[in-house]
Amino acid sequence: MKIENIRPGEIESRSFEIITELLGDKKLDPRYESVIKRCIHTSADFDYADNLYFTDGVIETIQEAIKSGAYIVTDTQMARAGINKRRIEKYGGQVLCFIGDDDVAAEAKARGVTRSFVSMEKASRLDRPVIFAIGNAPTALLSIYDLVKAGKLSPAAVVGVPVGFVNVVESKERLIELGVPAIVAKGRKGGSNIAAAIINAIQYKIEE
Amino acid sequence: MKIENIRPGEIESRSFEIITELLGDKKLDPRYESVIKRCIHTSADFDYADNLYFTDGVIETIQEAIKSGAYIVTDTQMARAGINKRRIEKYGGQVLCFIGDDDVAAEAKARGVTRSFVSMEKASRLDRPVIFAIGNAPTALLSIYDLVKAGKLSPAAVVGVPVGFVNVVESKERLIELGVPAIVAKGRKGGSNIAAAIINAIQYKIEE
Repeated sequence: MKIENIRPGEIESRSFEIITELLGDKKLDPRYESVIKRCIHTSADFDYADNLYFTDGVIETIQEAIKSGAYIVTDTQMARAGINKRRIEKYGGQVLCFIGDDDVAAEAKARGVTRSFVSMEKASRLDRPVIFAIGNAPTALLSIYDLVKAGKLSPAAVVGVPVGFVNVVESKERLIELGVPAIVAKGRKGGSNIAAAIINAIQYKIEE
Repeated sequence: MKIENIRPGEIESRSFEIITELLGDKKLDPRYESVIKRCIHTSADFDYADNLYFTDGVIETIQEAIKSGAYIVTDTQMARAGINKRRIEKYGGQVLCFIGDDDVAAEAKARGVTRSFVSMEKASRLDRPVIFAIGNAPTALLSIYDLVKAGKLSPAAVVGVPVGFVNVVESKERLIELGVPAIVAKGRKGGSNIAAAIINAIQYKIEE
Protein backbone atom coordinates (compact mmCIF):
# COMPACT_ATOMS: atom_id res chain seq x y z
CA MET A 1 0.00 0.00 0.00
CA LYS A 2 1.08 3.48 -0.79
CA ILE A 3 1.95 6.00 1.91
CA GLU A 4 0.06 9.26 1.43
CA ASN A 5 2.49 12.18 1.27
CA ILE A 6 1.10 14.75 3.65
CA ARG A 7 2.55 17.61 5.65
CA PRO A 8 2.59 17.20 9.45
CA GLY A 9 0.26 20.16 9.97
CA GLU A 10 -2.37 18.68 7.65
CA ILE A 11 -2.63 15.16 9.09
CA GLU A 12 -5.29 16.06 11.63
CA SER A 13 -7.55 17.98 9.25
CA ARG A 14 -7.23 15.21 6.66
CA SER A 15 -8.19 12.68 9.36
CA PHE A 16 -11.33 14.64 10.18
CA GLU A 17 -12.23 14.82 6.47
CA ILE A 18 -11.96 11.03 6.23
CA ILE A 19 -14.08 10.60 9.37
CA THR A 20 -16.72 12.87 7.82
CA GLU A 21 -16.65 10.81 4.60
CA LEU A 22 -16.96 7.56 6.53
CA LEU A 23 -19.90 8.89 8.55
CA GLY A 24 -21.68 9.29 5.20
CA ASP A 25 -25.34 10.17 5.66
CA LYS A 26 -25.15 9.94 9.43
CA LYS A 27 -26.34 13.24 10.86
CA LEU A 28 -24.55 14.57 13.93
CA ASP A 29 -25.94 17.30 16.17
CA PRO A 30 -23.84 20.34 15.16
CA ARG A 31 -23.50 21.33 18.82
CA TYR A 32 -21.64 18.10 19.55
CA GLU A 33 -20.05 17.30 16.22
CA SER A 34 -16.49 18.29 17.12
CA VAL A 35 -16.60 16.24 20.33
CA ILE A 36 -18.04 13.19 18.61
CA LYS A 37 -15.55 13.34 15.76
CA ARG A 38 -12.60 13.74 18.11
CA CYS A 39 -13.70 10.65 20.05
CA ILE A 40 -13.80 8.73 16.76
CA HIS A 41 -10.42 10.24 15.83
CA THR A 42 -8.80 8.95 19.03
CA SER A 43 -10.30 5.43 18.84
CA ALA A 44 -11.27 4.75 15.20
CA ASP A 45 -14.46 3.46 16.81
CA PHE A 46 -17.63 4.77 15.17
CA ASP A 47 -19.78 3.68 18.12
CA TYR A 48 -19.03 7.16 19.47
CA ALA A 49 -21.33 8.56 16.77
CA ASP A 50 -24.20 7.01 18.74
CA ASN A 51 -23.30 6.51 22.38
CA LEU A 52 -22.52 10.01 23.62
CA TYR A 53 -25.04 11.80 25.85
CA PHE A 54 -24.89 15.57 26.52
CA THR A 55 -26.87 17.65 28.97
CA ASP A 56 -28.20 20.87 27.49
CA GLY A 57 -25.61 23.62 27.34
CA VAL A 58 -22.78 21.47 28.67
CA ILE A 59 -20.29 22.54 25.98
CA GLU A 60 -20.70 26.23 26.83
CA THR A 61 -20.64 25.44 30.56
CA ILE A 62 -17.28 23.68 30.23
CA GLN A 63 -15.85 26.43 28.03
CA GLU A 64 -16.93 29.14 30.49
CA ALA A 65 -15.49 27.14 33.39
CA ILE A 66 -12.14 26.77 31.62
CA LYS A 67 -12.10 30.50 30.86
CA SER A 68 -12.78 31.18 34.54
CA GLY A 69 -9.74 29.13 35.57
CA ALA A 70 -11.51 25.95 36.68
CA TYR A 71 -9.41 22.93 37.53
CA ILE A 72 -9.74 19.77 35.50
CA VAL A 73 -9.50 16.65 37.67
CA THR A 74 -8.92 13.26 36.07
CA ASP A 75 -9.05 9.75 37.53
CA THR A 76 -5.89 8.57 35.77
CA GLN A 77 -2.45 9.91 34.89
CA MET A 78 -3.17 8.81 31.30
CA ALA A 79 -6.16 11.14 30.99
CA ARG A 80 -4.14 13.89 32.64
CA ALA A 81 -1.30 13.34 30.15
CA GLY A 82 -3.69 13.44 27.21
CA ILE A 83 -5.29 16.79 28.00
CA ASN A 84 -3.70 19.78 26.29
CA LYS A 85 -2.61 22.09 29.11
CA ARG A 86 -1.73 25.29 27.25
CA ARG A 87 -5.12 27.01 27.17
CA ILE A 88 -6.22 25.69 30.52
CA GLU A 89 -3.12 27.07 32.20
CA LYS A 90 -3.39 30.30 30.23
CA TYR A 91 -6.76 30.90 31.93
CA GLY A 92 -5.28 30.06 35.33
CA GLY A 93 -6.49 26.47 35.57
CA GLN A 94 -4.60 23.24 36.08
CA VAL A 95 -5.06 19.58 35.18
CA LEU A 96 -4.84 17.52 38.34
CA CYS A 97 -4.91 13.84 39.25
CA PHE A 98 -4.71 12.59 42.83
CA ILE A 99 -4.73 8.83 42.15
CA GLY A 100 -1.05 8.38 42.98
CA ASP A 101 -1.04 10.48 46.16
CA ASP A 102 0.16 8.70 49.27
CA ASP A 103 -2.67 10.06 51.44
CA VAL A 104 -5.23 8.82 48.93
CA ALA A 105 -3.68 5.34 48.83
CA ALA A 106 -3.53 5.11 52.62
CA GLU A 107 -7.12 6.21 53.12
CA ALA A 108 -8.42 3.91 50.39
CA LYS A 109 -6.69 0.94 51.98
CA ALA A 110 -7.98 1.80 55.46
CA ARG A 111 -11.57 2.18 54.25
CA GLY A 112 -11.59 -0.71 51.77
CA VAL A 113 -12.57 1.51 48.83
CA THR A 114 -10.75 2.32 45.62
CA ARG A 115 -8.12 5.03 45.32
CA SER A 116 -10.29 6.47 42.54
CA PHE A 117 -13.15 6.87 45.03
CA VAL A 118 -10.98 8.68 47.58
CA SER A 119 -9.27 10.83 44.93
CA MET A 120 -12.63 12.39 44.06
CA GLU A 121 -13.22 13.26 47.72
CA LYS A 122 -9.86 14.99 47.72
CA ALA A 123 -10.89 16.90 44.58
CA SER A 124 -14.12 18.00 46.29
CA ARG A 125 -12.03 19.95 48.80
CA LEU A 126 -10.37 22.09 46.14
CA ASP A 127 -10.99 25.81 46.47
CA ARG A 128 -12.35 26.44 42.97
CA PRO A 129 -14.76 24.96 40.41
CA VAL A 130 -13.82 21.55 39.04
CA ILE A 131 -14.51 19.89 35.71
CA PHE A 132 -14.14 16.14 36.20
CA ALA A 133 -12.78 13.99 33.37
CA ILE A 134 -13.33 10.35 34.30
CA GLY A 135 -12.19 7.80 31.75
CA ASN A 136 -11.36 4.75 33.76
CA ALA A 137 -12.97 4.20 37.15
CA PRO A 138 -16.70 3.82 37.68
CA THR A 139 -15.97 4.15 41.40
CA ALA A 140 -14.84 7.73 40.69
CA LEU A 141 -18.31 8.47 39.30
CA LEU A 142 -19.95 6.73 42.25
CA SER A 143 -17.86 8.89 44.58
CA ILE A 144 -18.93 12.05 42.74
CA TYR A 145 -22.54 10.87 43.01
CA ASP A 146 -22.27 10.40 46.78
CA LEU A 147 -20.53 13.76 47.24
CA VAL A 148 -23.15 15.66 45.24
CA LYS A 149 -26.01 13.88 47.04
CA ALA A 150 -24.39 14.76 50.38
CA GLY A 151 -24.11 18.42 49.39
CA LYS A 152 -20.32 18.29 49.52
CA LEU A 153 -19.63 18.88 45.83
CA SER A 154 -21.09 20.98 43.06
CA PRO A 155 -19.05 20.12 39.97
CA ALA A 156 -18.81 22.59 37.10
CA ALA A 157 -19.30 19.57 34.84
CA VAL A 158 -18.56 15.85 34.71
CA VAL A 159 -17.20 14.05 31.66
CA GLY A 160 -18.19 10.51 32.62
CA VAL A 161 -16.71 8.01 30.22
CA PRO A 162 -15.25 5.17 32.29
CA VAL A 163 -14.66 1.98 30.34
CA GLY A 164 -15.23 -1.56 31.42
CA PHE A 165 -17.37 -4.29 32.77
CA VAL A 166 -18.03 -3.91 36.50
CA ASN A 167 -20.49 -1.15 37.51
CA VAL A 168 -19.55 0.94 34.46
CA VAL A 169 -22.98 1.15 32.85
CA GLU A 170 -24.60 1.65 36.26
CA SER A 171 -22.22 4.42 37.31
CA LYS A 172 -23.01 6.32 34.12
CA GLU A 173 -26.75 5.99 34.69
CA ARG A 174 -26.29 7.44 38.15
CA LEU A 175 -24.37 10.37 36.72
CA ILE A 176 -27.18 11.08 34.25
CA GLU A 177 -29.74 10.82 37.08
CA LEU A 178 -27.74 13.37 39.09
CA GLY A 179 -28.64 16.14 36.67
CA VAL A 180 -25.33 18.02 36.79
CA PRO A 181 -23.79 19.30 33.52
CA ALA A 182 -22.42 16.11 31.99
CA ILE A 183 -21.14 14.27 28.95
CA VAL A 184 -21.50 10.49 29.15
CA ALA A 185 -20.53 7.60 26.88
CA LYS A 186 -23.47 5.28 27.43
CA GLY A 187 -22.69 1.60 27.69
CA ARG A 188 -19.37 -0.05 28.44
CA LYS A 189 -17.13 2.03 26.22
CA GLY A 190 -14.96 5.00 27.08
CA GLY A 191 -11.42 5.35 28.33
CA SER A 192 -8.76 7.79 29.42
CA ASN A 193 -8.14 8.65 25.76
CA ILE A 194 -11.84 9.41 25.28
CA ALA A 195 -12.00 11.59 28.41
CA ALA A 196 -8.99 13.58 27.20
CA ALA A 197 -10.36 13.82 23.65
CA ILE A 198 -13.64 15.30 24.91
CA ILE A 199 -11.93 17.97 27.03
CA ASN A 200 -9.60 18.80 24.15
CA ALA A 201 -12.38 19.03 21.56
CA ILE A 202 -14.24 21.49 23.78
CA GLN A 203 -11.28 23.66 24.69
CA TYR A 204 -10.04 23.84 21.09
CA LYS A 205 -13.32 25.60 20.23
CA ILE A 206 -12.77 28.38 22.75
CA GLU A 207 -12.12 31.53 20.77
CA GLU A 208 -8.89 33.08 21.91
CA MET B 1 -29.71 -0.59 37.96
CA LYS B 2 -28.04 -2.09 40.97
CA ILE B 3 -24.40 -1.40 41.81
CA GLU B 4 -22.48 -4.63 42.32
CA ASN B 5 -20.81 -4.63 45.73
CA ILE B 6 -17.25 -5.68 45.07
CA ARG B 7 -13.95 -5.18 46.84
CA PRO B 8 -11.38 -2.93 45.09
CA GLY B 9 -8.89 -5.79 44.73
CA GLU B 10 -11.45 -7.94 42.93
CA ILE B 11 -12.69 -5.50 40.27
CA GLU B 12 -10.05 -6.42 37.72
CA SER B 13 -10.40 -10.19 38.03
CA ARG B 14 -14.20 -9.86 37.87
CA SER B 15 -13.82 -7.73 34.72
CA PHE B 16 -11.72 -10.43 33.07
CA GLU B 17 -14.31 -13.07 34.04
CA ILE B 18 -17.01 -11.02 32.33
CA ILE B 19 -14.83 -10.55 29.22
CA THR B 20 -14.33 -14.33 29.11
CA GLU B 21 -18.09 -14.88 29.41
CA LEU B 22 -18.80 -12.36 26.64
CA LEU B 23 -16.24 -13.97 24.33
CA GLY B 24 -18.36 -17.13 24.59
CA ASP B 25 -17.22 -19.79 22.17
CA LYS B 26 -14.58 -17.55 20.63
CA LYS B 27 -11.23 -19.34 20.92
CA LEU B 28 -8.17 -17.21 21.66
CA ASP B 29 -4.60 -18.40 21.16
CA PRO B 30 -3.46 -19.17 24.73
CA ARG B 31 -0.09 -17.51 24.01
CA TYR B 32 -1.80 -14.19 23.38
CA GLU B 33 -4.92 -14.45 25.50
CA SER B 34 -3.79 -12.14 28.30
CA VAL B 35 -2.76 -9.43 25.81
CA ILE B 36 -6.00 -9.69 23.85
CA LYS B 37 -8.15 -9.60 26.96
CA ARG B 38 -6.31 -6.60 28.40
CA CYS B 39 -6.87 -4.70 25.14
CA ILE B 40 -10.59 -5.47 25.42
CA HIS B 41 -10.48 -4.51 29.11
CA THR B 42 -9.06 -1.08 28.31
CA SER B 43 -11.45 -0.32 25.44
CA ALA B 44 -14.55 -2.53 25.84
CA ASP B 45 -14.01 -3.12 22.14
CA PHE B 46 -14.19 -6.79 21.14
CA ASP B 47 -12.57 -6.08 17.75
CA TYR B 48 -9.31 -6.72 19.59
CA ALA B 49 -10.23 -10.40 19.73
CA ASP B 50 -9.65 -10.45 15.96
CA ASN B 51 -7.33 -7.67 14.87
CA LEU B 52 -4.11 -8.36 16.78
CA TYR B 53 -1.11 -9.81 14.94
CA PHE B 54 1.88 -11.34 16.76
CA THR B 55 5.22 -12.47 15.38
CA ASP B 56 6.34 -15.85 16.70
CA GLY B 57 7.90 -15.66 20.14
CA VAL B 58 7.29 -11.93 20.56
CA ILE B 59 5.85 -12.25 24.07
CA GLU B 60 8.96 -14.03 25.37
CA THR B 61 11.22 -11.61 23.46
CA ILE B 62 9.60 -8.63 25.17
CA GLN B 63 9.70 -10.28 28.58
CA GLU B 64 13.39 -11.13 28.22
CA ALA B 65 14.15 -7.61 27.03
CA ILE B 66 12.38 -6.11 30.05
CA LYS B 67 14.29 -8.45 32.35
CA SER B 68 17.53 -7.33 30.70
CA GLY B 69 16.76 -3.68 31.46
CA ALA B 70 15.55 -2.59 28.02
CA TYR B 71 14.05 0.84 27.64
CA ILE B 72 10.46 1.23 26.57
CA VAL B 73 9.99 4.19 24.21
CA THR B 74 6.51 5.52 23.50
CA ASP B 75 5.27 8.06 20.95
CA THR B 76 2.97 9.86 23.42
CA GLN B 77 3.01 10.98 27.02
CA MET B 78 -0.34 9.20 27.39
CA ALA B 79 1.15 5.81 26.53
CA ARG B 80 4.09 6.57 28.81
CA ALA B 81 1.70 7.44 31.65
CA GLY B 82 -0.29 4.25 31.14
CA ILE B 83 2.63 1.83 31.39
CA ASN B 84 3.25 0.42 34.84
CA LYS B 85 6.81 1.40 35.72
CA ARG B 86 7.53 -0.71 38.82
CA ARG B 87 8.81 -3.91 37.24
CA ILE B 88 10.48 -2.17 34.33
CA GLU B 89 12.47 0.03 36.69
CA LYS B 90 13.18 -2.90 39.00
CA TYR B 91 15.03 -4.55 36.11
CA GLY B 92 16.92 -1.34 35.36
CA GLY B 93 14.78 -0.12 32.47
CA GLN B 94 12.88 3.12 31.99
CA VAL B 95 9.82 4.27 30.09
CA LEU B 96 10.78 7.19 27.87
CA CYS B 97 9.03 9.57 25.48
CA PHE B 98 10.84 12.25 23.51
CA ILE B 99 7.84 13.86 21.79
CA GLY B 100 7.93 16.97 23.97
CA ASP B 101 11.69 17.55 23.78
CA ASP B 102 12.75 20.94 22.45
CA ASP B 103 15.45 19.48 20.18
CA VAL B 104 12.90 17.10 18.65
CA ALA B 105 10.42 19.94 18.00
CA ALA B 106 13.09 22.15 16.43
CA GLU B 107 14.40 19.43 14.13
CA ALA B 108 10.90 18.35 13.08
CA LYS B 109 10.02 21.91 12.15
CA ALA B 110 13.25 22.42 10.22
CA ARG B 111 12.82 19.18 8.25
CA GLY B 112 9.04 19.40 7.72
CA VAL B 113 8.40 16.02 9.37
CA THR B 114 6.42 15.13 12.47
CA ARG B 115 7.84 15.29 15.97
CA SER B 116 6.88 11.61 16.26
CA PHE B 117 9.16 10.84 13.32
CA VAL B 118 12.15 12.64 14.83
CA SER B 119 11.50 11.25 18.31
CA MET B 120 12.09 7.72 17.00
CA GLU B 121 15.44 8.79 15.52
CA LYS B 122 16.39 10.11 18.93
CA ALA B 123 15.39 6.77 20.45
CA SER B 124 17.57 4.94 17.93
CA ARG B 125 20.62 6.62 19.49
CA LEU B 126 19.95 5.17 22.96
CA ASP B 127 22.70 2.97 24.31
CA ARG B 128 20.62 -0.11 25.06
CA PRO B 129 17.87 -2.27 23.54
CA VAL B 130 14.53 -0.55 23.02
CA ILE B 131 10.97 -1.88 22.99
CA PHE B 132 8.82 0.61 21.08
CA ALA B 133 5.22 1.16 22.12
CA ILE B 134 3.52 3.22 19.41
CA GLY B 135 -0.16 3.97 19.96
CA ASN B 136 -0.74 7.20 18.16
CA ALA B 137 1.51 8.19 15.27
CA PRO B 138 1.88 6.20 12.07
CA THR B 139 4.82 8.48 11.27
CA ALA B 140 6.61 6.95 14.27
CA LEU B 141 6.27 3.51 12.65
CA LEU B 142 7.42 4.91 9.30
CA SER B 143 10.47 6.38 11.04
CA ILE B 144 11.26 3.02 12.67
CA TYR B 145 10.88 1.38 9.25
CA ASP B 146 13.36 3.78 7.66
CA LEU B 147 15.84 3.41 10.54
CA VAL B 148 15.77 -0.39 10.41
CA LYS B 149 16.09 -0.42 6.63
CA ALA B 150 19.07 1.95 6.91
CA GLY B 151 20.75 -0.33 9.45
CA LYS B 152 20.54 2.35 12.14
CA LEU B 153 18.15 0.55 14.46
CA SER B 154 17.57 -2.99 15.63
CA PRO B 155 14.57 -2.79 17.96
CA ALA B 156 14.06 -5.44 20.64
CA ALA B 157 10.40 -5.36 19.60
CA VAL B 158 7.78 -2.96 18.26
CA VAL B 159 4.24 -2.72 19.57
CA GLY B 160 2.66 -0.99 16.58
CA VAL B 161 -0.88 0.05 17.35
CA PRO B 162 -1.31 3.62 16.08
CA VAL B 163 -4.91 4.66 15.64
CA GLY B 164 -6.44 6.73 12.90
CA PHE B 165 -7.15 7.48 9.32
CA VAL B 166 -4.05 8.77 7.51
CA ASN B 167 -1.32 6.22 6.70
CA VAL B 168 -2.25 4.13 9.75
CA VAL B 169 -3.12 0.88 7.97
CA GLU B 170 -0.15 1.34 5.63
CA SER B 171 2.34 1.99 8.43
CA LYS B 172 1.28 -1.21 10.17
CA GLU B 173 1.70 -3.22 6.98
CA ARG B 174 5.22 -1.86 6.65
CA LEU B 175 5.98 -2.89 10.21
CA ILE B 176 4.80 -6.43 9.51
CA GLU B 177 6.86 -6.50 6.31
CA LEU B 178 9.94 -5.47 8.31
CA GLY B 179 10.02 -8.82 10.10
CA VAL B 180 11.17 -7.52 13.50
CA PRO B 181 9.50 -8.90 16.66
CA ALA B 182 6.16 -7.10 16.63
CA ILE B 183 2.62 -6.87 17.86
CA VAL B 184 0.26 -5.01 15.54
CA ALA B 185 -3.41 -4.04 15.67
CA LYS B 186 -4.37 -4.48 12.03
CA GLY B 187 -6.68 -1.88 10.54
CA ARG B 188 -7.41 1.60 11.85
CA LYS B 189 -7.83 0.82 15.52
CA GLY B 190 -5.33 1.14 18.34
CA GLY B 191 -4.37 3.96 20.66
CA SER B 192 -2.08 5.04 23.46
CA ASN B 193 -4.27 3.07 25.88
CA ILE B 194 -3.91 -0.06 23.72
CA ALA B 195 -0.12 0.33 23.47
CA ALA B 196 0.12 0.64 27.25
CA ALA B 197 -2.28 -2.27 27.82
CA ILE B 198 -0.17 -4.56 25.63
CA ILE B 199 3.08 -3.71 27.43
CA ASN B 200 1.36 -4.12 30.81
CA ALA B 201 -0.26 -7.46 29.93
CA ILE B 202 3.14 -8.83 28.92
CA GLN B 203 5.10 -7.52 31.89
CA TYR B 204 2.45 -8.69 34.40
CA LYS B 205 3.17 -12.26 33.25
CA ILE B 206 6.88 -12.05 34.08
CA GLU B 207 7.44 -14.33 37.04
CA GLU B 208 9.17 -12.42 39.79
